[in-house]
Amino acid sequence: MDQQQRQEIYETARQWIYEAGAQIRGHMNEPLDIETKSNPNDLVTVLDKQTEKFFVDRIHHRYPEHHIIGEEGFGDTLSQVDGTIWIIDPIDGTMNFVHQKRTFAISIGILHNGVGEIGFIYDVMDDTLYHAKRGEGAFKNDSQLAPLDKEKKIKEAIVGMNHFWLCDNKVVDYTVMQKFVRTVRGTRTIGSAALELAHVAEGVQDAYLALSLAPWDVAGGIIINAEVGGIAGDVDGNPWNPLKRSAAVVANPSIHNYIIEFLKEGRK
Amino acid sequence: MDQQQRQEIYETARQWIYEAGAQIRGHMNEPLDIETKSNPNDLVTVLDKQTEKFFVDRIHHRYPEHHIIGEEGFGDTLSQVDGTIWIIDPIDGTMNFVHQKRTFAISIGILHNGVGEIGFIYDVMDDTLYHAKRGEGAFKNDSQLAPLDKEKKIKEAIVGMNHFWLCDNKVVDYTVMQKFVRTVRGTRTIGSAALELAHVAEGVQDAYLALSLAPWDVAGGIIINAEVGGIAGDVDGNPWNPLKRSAAVVANPSIHNYIIEFLKEGRK
Repeated sequence: MDQQQRQEIYETARQWIYEAGAQIRGHMNEPLDIETKSNPNDLVTVLDKQTEKFFVDRIHHRYPEHHIIGEEGFGDTLSQVDGTIWIIDPIDGTMNFVHQKRTFAISIGILHNGVGEIGFIYDVMDDTLYHAKRGEGAFKNDSQLAPLDKEKKIKEAIVGMNHFWLCDNKVVDYTVMQKFVRTVRGTRTIGSAALELAHVAEGVQDAYLALSLAPWDVAGGIIINAEVGGIAGDVDGNPWNPLKRSAAVVANPSIHNYIIEFLKEGRK
Repeated sequence: MDQQQRQEIYETARQWIYEAGAQIRGHMNEPLDIETKSNPNDLVTVLDKQTEKFFVDRIHHRYPEHHIIGEEGFGDTLSQVDGTIWIIDPIDGTMNFVHQKRTFAISIGILHNGVGEIGFIYDVMDDTLYHAKRGEGAFKNDSQLAPLDKEKKIKEAIVGMNHFWLCDNKVVDYTVMQKFVRTVRGTRTIGSAALELAHVAEGVQDAYLALSLAPWDVAGGIIINAEVGGIAGDVDGNPWNPLKRSAAVVANPSIHNYIIEFLKEGRK
């Protein structure tokens, strides 16, 4: 993908995101049809589906050769990363959407032949857009984000992680995570992976750990983080695989390795 | 305290809060003198002290007969709750203040003879004021907050609590809290007790649990919650004591008792 193509797709996608966000805000006060997915913690709303369809229809029409991976299933099932792929989470932070009517995001990552080219995370209610193009820096609205602090120490780090890391889980012994919680300066849980990744890129949070994330939860955020030096991968330090659900660690470069080594102690 | 006195104090305090907030915002981009208090997780900034002093000076001048309890120590040491007491946290969420430059609050509760009369929580960077007067309802800026949902079920509840509940602690067996985390719909940690209490009052979060809170962390929030039906007390279900540091549970009335009973299983 050359710079001109990247710029054209970026501008088009950004316009669609603002349109989709405005539609969501317009619908916020209507009653919602809520179905539960696999468990009551995993809600999906009508708007979630409508928003994904909004993007899928437009992409199919304008870029018929592009592929799509989306949470709500209107996209494609892909086994390889050739060509241009849009990875879309129409509403990341569904529980926040339903309970709080805020702190959720549209997240989009666009890859070409496996390389992250364009990333967006749009905090819909706050009307704040995090965005990046490969090699051109990351931005929060019109402000460029600074490269992440390379001198950050683990004991000064604020880490986003949910409370299940401290319960029995398949990834890591929770007693190791109890030590981890006492090692870092503070922990946070805001309920939207995309926004937590945006906060890592912004440097207001230094890492985000997730026990299980789908590609659409992180694609936009990983591309944005790459532009400020944030490192993303699985819990064993392997690079991110955009076709696979996995546990994930996205962190400031000066603490990423420390976290991976810490987790190793308790890996299952 | 009659309604007219309450109204006069409320208007004065609100004006001071907006002034103090504007000063903090003005200073946000200056370098800060940071000292560590008892541990590196407990930071206090110069602005924290300046802001408390701002309130203390004004209260002493305008209401010389009022008492003050404040985090930074410019207030009084009280052993009883007679008269009018201002309980002030100039910056609640100091870690957020330092690391994020947002998501912190000025919190003020005003009691008269032990009864909560006026409560404020001011999200400084977001310029959002939660406020209440006894018997006159609670508000977020100009919008009155609705009474809390009396049909809320625990498995639909979003609960604010930090990750130390799931580590060895003096209050409750963490294995009981692991069960608790799997019982509720979701957990959150935003790093400001005051703002978490504001979110309980707003109904976007259904409870807030803290292992150890000082009076200034919660006074404003408890008074605001009282106006929408939110129940506050210690972890054994005893009423809040405004002179004592303690573990705390503030919750929607339909799940408060459930939480207390749950904690009882693991109380130390």
